[in-house]
Amino acid sequence: MKAIVTVRLKREVLDPQGDAVSRALARQGFSHVRSVRVGKVVELEIADGISAETAHAELAKMADALLANPVTEDYEIELL
Amino acid sequence: MKAIVTVRLKREVLDPQGDAVSRALARQGFSHVRSVRVGKVVELEIADGISAETAHAELAKMADALLANPVTEDYEIELL
Repeated sequence: MKAIVTVRLKREVLDPQGDAVSRALARQGFSHVRSVRVGKVVELEIADGISAETAHAELAKMADALLANPVTEDYEIELL
Repeated sequence: MKAIVTVRLKREVLDPQGDAVSRALARQGFSHVRSVRVGKVVELEIADGISAETAHAELAKMADALLANPVTEDYEIELL
């Protein structure tokens, strides 16, 4: 089973990396870009033979413990 | 208009960050994880009043020029 955990900065948290990308795009002439936010996408290959519910619960624990910083980041879990 | 550009390492490129996450998860007892790959998700707010085709073409240029490294990474564009 494949799983994707998308980790994004919370809306109220400043994103210096996104701002830098935004400025670099503007410098290169991409004038249509209003703002940029950069996050992470973690793709995990999960062993077969566990249920989708168990996988989802485990992935939430992984995200809380290691993949995301709960103070500054939100995450979203998708099972494929 | 909102756009998401997901940038992933090409399949044949080693991912030391993903391997480190995978080992860290194993150490914390998450034994169901077989492998991990880490990529980037770039969320862009695009000015209204340009067509989806123009936006898509511009985003492909941005990805080629700045968001992804075409030697080691693939990208995917999604317009919301």
